[in-house]
Amino acid sequence: MDRIGVVDTMFARYDMGAEAVDELRHCPGHGTRFEILRRTVPGFKDLGVACKKLIQEEGCRIVVALGMPGRAPIDQVCAHEASQGIMLAQLLTNTHILEVFVHETEEEDPAKLAAVCVDRARKHARNAYWLLYEPEQLTRRAGQGVRQGYTDAGPLLPPAD
Amino acid sequence: MDRIGVVDTMFARYDMGAEAVDELRHCPGHGTRFEILRRTVPGFKDLGVACKKLIQEEGCRIVVALGMPGRAPIDQVCAHEASQGIMLAQLLTNTHILEVFVHETEEEDPAKLAAVCVDRARKHARNAYWLLYEPEQLTRRAGQGVRQGYTDAGPLLPPAD
Amino acid sequence: MDRIGVVDTMFARYDMGAEAVDELRHCPGHGTRFEILRRTVPGFKDLGVACKKLIQEEGCRIVVALGMPGRAPIDQVCAHEASQGIMLAQLLTNTHILEVFVHETEEEDPAKLAAVCVDRARKHARNAYWLLYEPEQLTRRAGQGVRQGYTDAGPLLPPAD
Amino acid sequence: MDRIGVVDTMFARYDMGAEAVDELRHCPGHGTRFEILRRTVPGFKDLGVACKKLIQEEGCRIVVALGMPGRAPIDQVCAHEASQGIMLAQLLTNTHILEVFVHETEEEDPAKLAAVCVDRARKHARNAYWLLYEPEQLTRRAGQGVRQGYTDAGPLLPPAD
Amino acid sequence: MDRIGVVDTMFARYDMGAEAVDELRHCPGHGTRFEILRRTVPGFKDLGVACKKLIQEEGCRIVVALGMPGRAPIDQVCAHEASQGIMLAQLLTNTHILEVFVHETEEEDPAKLAAVCVDRARKHARNAYWLLYEPEQLTRRAGQGVRQGYTDAGPLLPPAD
Repeated sequence: MDRIGVVDTMFARYDMGAEAVDELRHCPGHGTRFEILRRTVPGFKDLGVACKKLIQEEGCRIVVALGMPGRAPIDQVCAHEASQGIMLAQLLTNTHILEVFVHETEEEDPAKLAAVCVDRARKHARNAYWLLYEPEQLTRRAGQGVRQGYTDAGPLLPPAD
Repeated sequence: MDRIGVVDTMFARYDMGAEAVDELRHCPGHGTRFEILRRTVPGFKDLGVACKKLIQEEGCRIVVALGMPGRAPIDQVCAHEASQGIMLAQLLTNTHILEVFVHETEEEDPAKLAAVCVDRARKHARNAYWLLYEPEQLTRRAGQGVRQGYTDAGPLLPPAD
Repeated sequence: MDRIGVVDTMFARYDMGAEAVDELRHCPGHGTRFEILRRTVPGFKDLGVACKKLIQEEGCRIVVALGMPGRAPIDQVCAHEASQGIMLAQLLTNTHILEVFVHETEEEDPAKLAAVCVDRARKHARNAYWLLYEPEQLTRRAGQGVRQGYTDAGPLLPPAD
Repeated sequence: MDRIGVVDTMFARYDMGAEAVDELRHCPGHGTRFEILRRTVPGFKDLGVACKKLIQEEGCRIVVALGMPGRAPIDQVCAHEASQGIMLAQLLTNTHILEVFVHETEEEDPAKLAAVCVDRARKHARNAYWLLYEPEQLTRRAGQGVRQGYTDAGPLLPPAD
Repeated sequence: MDRIGVVDTMFARYDMGAEAVDELRHCPGHGTRFEILRRTVPGFKDLGVACKKLIQEEGCRIVVALGMPGRAPIDQVCAHEASQGIMLAQLLTNTHILEVFVHETEEEDPAKLAAVCVDRARKHARNAYWLLYEPEQLTRRAGQGVRQGYTDAGPLLPPAD
């Protein structure tokens, strides 16, 4: 059976990992074609190596990595470092890791911020499923301004000739 | 038959991948000397590993990677991370990946922005072809201020002696 | 017997390494299941390679890396480079390294700053222990806004339906 | 016969590659001890992999990489990425690559800017030759404030005792 | 006999390499237990690969890398790239490289700046010796606010209970 990894953090202020796991549980083939492995690490800078271990030691074919950078300026630098780690983990394993970061600064209202967490975690969990089993779903939406966490931006007008 | 890869995103607001593919289809040898493989990923941070997989798992000899960073400040950081991933994918495979990024901030007018997308995607698709089959086309233009997306900047005046 | 590494610096203005070692000494299995190896390097930019050596040459299964970036603007750039080194050391070894950085700018009052050092060093030493031996402690706290150095931020309100 | 690589771009607005090649042609041993390989790529972000290919696929023992970042703010980020690629190419091959970047913002006057291009390209071509065949030329100038593109800054006064 | 590497630049405006070499010559075991290899490169971005070559091709067990970033804003970006190169060289070789950078902006007075160069170069040369032969000298000073180039910052007050 294939394995899909889900890694999240104690630092985040919303349980995005649970949302991603629930979304994947409703995808076709859960429990027959693929199973889900979940791990939690302290903060988002621990995600990169945790994902790489899931891929190389546990055989995950794709991973969803979820984190929530805080409001302090230093959190932006840390998020950048975390992203670089996730990027490198992908390149060293030839395996997609979908980074799902919700910045605490995206919304002032906690309930709205939580809604972004839910939407982004679920849509990227679905993207992970598509990348593995239905890549034509992605190609069909090429250049369509698709967003996670918010409504789609949509495509541009055609160029002025 | 050689393979040329084209990877784009759902996030972009213009179907630059289609433009690159169409340009390559009009290059000499399409269908006889080389064929085109196209992939679509969620966002530009997924491009690096997708390109590396096309090179190492599908045998592409060169790849065109297209993306459109959005207007938010965080998008600039993400674009930087995406670029670093594409850079590393090249260095780990000794294979050129032509990065075609159109920043949404480059033009206010959507139709003008779309025109930049078309021009840059097509010119870099042509560059990919040249790198593989006609490198003398590039050498001939060395230091000539060649641009993609806009008209060429042209060469500088000679130095004041 | 397993080995847990602790690396700190001469540059830091508080002996965070001693705090981390003391915390680990009070974890179950110290001296029977695991032993502690401690190293000190000049500054935080020397942490990455020191951690990697502990993992690859001394067999440490996890490492706690402690440093204190100073007040000068250049220290922020150096801290970023140090973090990138720690990130890369993790990815090249498939081993967690918990980065414990206390920025001198976090608190004006030296005694308050020292308190942050103690709390963060001890909590991350405990996290290292959990990652090795009790990962369910981490999963249980997923998305709970857990902090080190300060009190927890706590979870967000549920999304507005 | 040894090989020295020269790589430049179509994007640059001055043919710095030609200057580097001409300088190397006037170095002792050209045509007998070493020959020159020249390549041109679209932009400076393509330099890293082009240099690495010259080293690993064509046997170059050192490479001169020339580029000209433009005036837009994004060009500074791209130049940073290009430099990181050149850095990594060196470290993965244990081979020097001399980065010769002339920022278009260095001079307002095009003729003055071109003069910087000529001077910097030629001096670094000479440095490449020295690194391979006369390293004592470099050691002799250690700490002397040597510059390329402009006149030397010169050494500091000795410390105040 | 062990080898300790010292690499500096022509770009720097003070001969820091000579200071480091002289300090190492006065360390116990010079000429019997260890010898010194010195190299000079054009600028600080050439240090990383030069250090890696000293380690992997010349067998150096540790290296001191000295450079002086200039006053221009671009020099700060270049210094960051140079540091990343030195960091990577360490991680790819499991060998410490002590980075000794003196920023020209640290002092206005040239004689004071030169004094920083002397102090920092010598103290880090001593640190290199300690890392190889007397690591307990470092552990003894853990968390003591030790500085190079200036007087020590000293340790913080204990935390307020």
